[in-house]
Amino acid sequence: MPKIKKAVILLSGGLDSTTALAIAKSEGYELYCLSFRYGQRHTCELASARRVAEAFGAKGHLVIEVDLRPVGGSALTDNIEVPKGRSESDMQKNIPATYVPARNTIFLSYAVAWAEVLGASDIFIGVNVIDYSGYPDCRPQFIEAFERMANLATKAGTEGGVQLKIRTPLISMTKAEIIKKGLELGVDYGMTHSCYDPSPQGTPCGRCDSCLIRKKGFAEAGVPDPLEINASSLNSTTLF
Amino acid sequence: MPKIKKAVILLSGGLDSTTALAIAKSEGYELYCLSFRYGQRHTCELASARRVAEAFGAKGHLVIEVDLRPVGGSALTDNIEVPKGRSESDMQKNIPATYVPARNTIFLSYAVAWAEVLGASDIFIGVNVIDYSGYPDCRPQFIEAFERMANLATKAGTEGGVQLKIRTPLISMTKAEIIKKGLELGVDYGMTHSCYDPSPQGTPCGRCDSCLIRKKGFAEAGVPDPLEINASSLNSTTLF
Repeated sequence: MPKIKKAVILLSGGLDSTTALAIAKSEGYELYCLSFRYGQRHTCELASARRVAEAFGAKGHLVIEVDLRPVGGSALTDNIEVPKGRSESDMQKNIPATYVPARNTIFLSYAVAWAEVLGASDIFIGVNVIDYSGYPDCRPQFIEAFERMANLATKAGTEGGVQLKIRTPLISMTKAEIIKKGLELGVDYGMTHSCYDPSPQGTPCGRCDSCLIRKKGFAEAGVPDPLEINASSLNSTTLF
Repeated sequence: MPKIKKAVILLSGGLDSTTALAIAKSEGYELYCLSFRYGQRHTCELASARRVAEAFGAKGHLVIEVDLRPVGGSALTDNIEVPKGRSESDMQKNIPATYVPARNTIFLSYAVAWAEVLGASDIFIGVNVIDYSGYPDCRPQFIEAFERMANLATKAGTEGGVQLKIRTPLISMTKAEIIKKGLELGVDYGMTHSCYDPSPQGTPCGRCDSCLIRKKGFAEAGVPDPLEINASSLNSTTLF
């Protein structure tokens, strides 16, 4: 019997990481999901991550406490306002205040640690450079440099064990392509959460970068967003 | 007036990181010390880190909670026994159970985040490949790969800001040379803590890799270890 391949998947509970998880599953990996409570305003994404990990039959799901607040410097963890209503060209040009310094580096480092303990060969991360917010730690040259570093950092890489691969299946897909791929693999996007600045009930604001990119993606994919439907029906209840 | 250079120093409170801090100070940096509570058995090293940071007039000292226990896989954080009485050749050949998967990668990633927020150009880490425990993430090729990755990960590196340097002043020094250098710079090694498996009162075990390497270092430097003196006097109190 062939040995089961294991993968660690960075799972925020958002659209991209959920699709990356679906892709890992479709490739036959045993799934180990890794989420972080990092002082983010939108902790309801962790509830999404839990639902999604369960729905995909993950073998393990770790939620690690990582307090980035003492480090500061981001609208997602600090008292800095989440930017709203930015244009697409603005998103491409300027790294926004929602950038969390070295976040993907920190998250991937934990993934490397867990992968080493599990004997997992692959780490999936749903980064994307097409419809994204302009974060430096989403770019392919960062991912390649990280993979190289990770294989020098670990016992596994050193003692001729499993070489780690950092897998970025979404990196050059548009948001619409990601959504179509996910739907093809049976993802229920109603389980996911994207907004950086939701209401206390978890309703998306509809105007942060993440909401705007998500909206455009569903529009371009030509399918309705199950969350949008929920949000509108919530709004109508409130308004009438 | 020239702009003050800032450095982030990874400070465990041990002999090496304390010496690295002394070197950063001697080079005129404003000092920002970074320590971690990572579920290690030997948390008394954090008390040492606090004393040392204060003694060197650090401008800032962050102690970040990083729970590596859910990840597992190490004698320092898990229910695995700390190896004792290993020979020097054994230390060189085999990565021991005290290895914490990807620890330096995780710690350096936090340092990168803080350096970015502070606008610091240098990160000091007291790694060493001469008298060490055989950890893969202490080697120069790891450090070089990490520095390259870090400069691709950050806003600073991307937008033509401060390029980050990972400084490893001790990397090719023997433990005796490190001790001599530190004494020359006024380090009081009585403030430091090295043992992986101290008594509840903080007395070094004297037999783990870290104690053995420290002992050998002081012997070769031809100076007494202030901690050894404390330990012996404690022992005499206990025994007689």
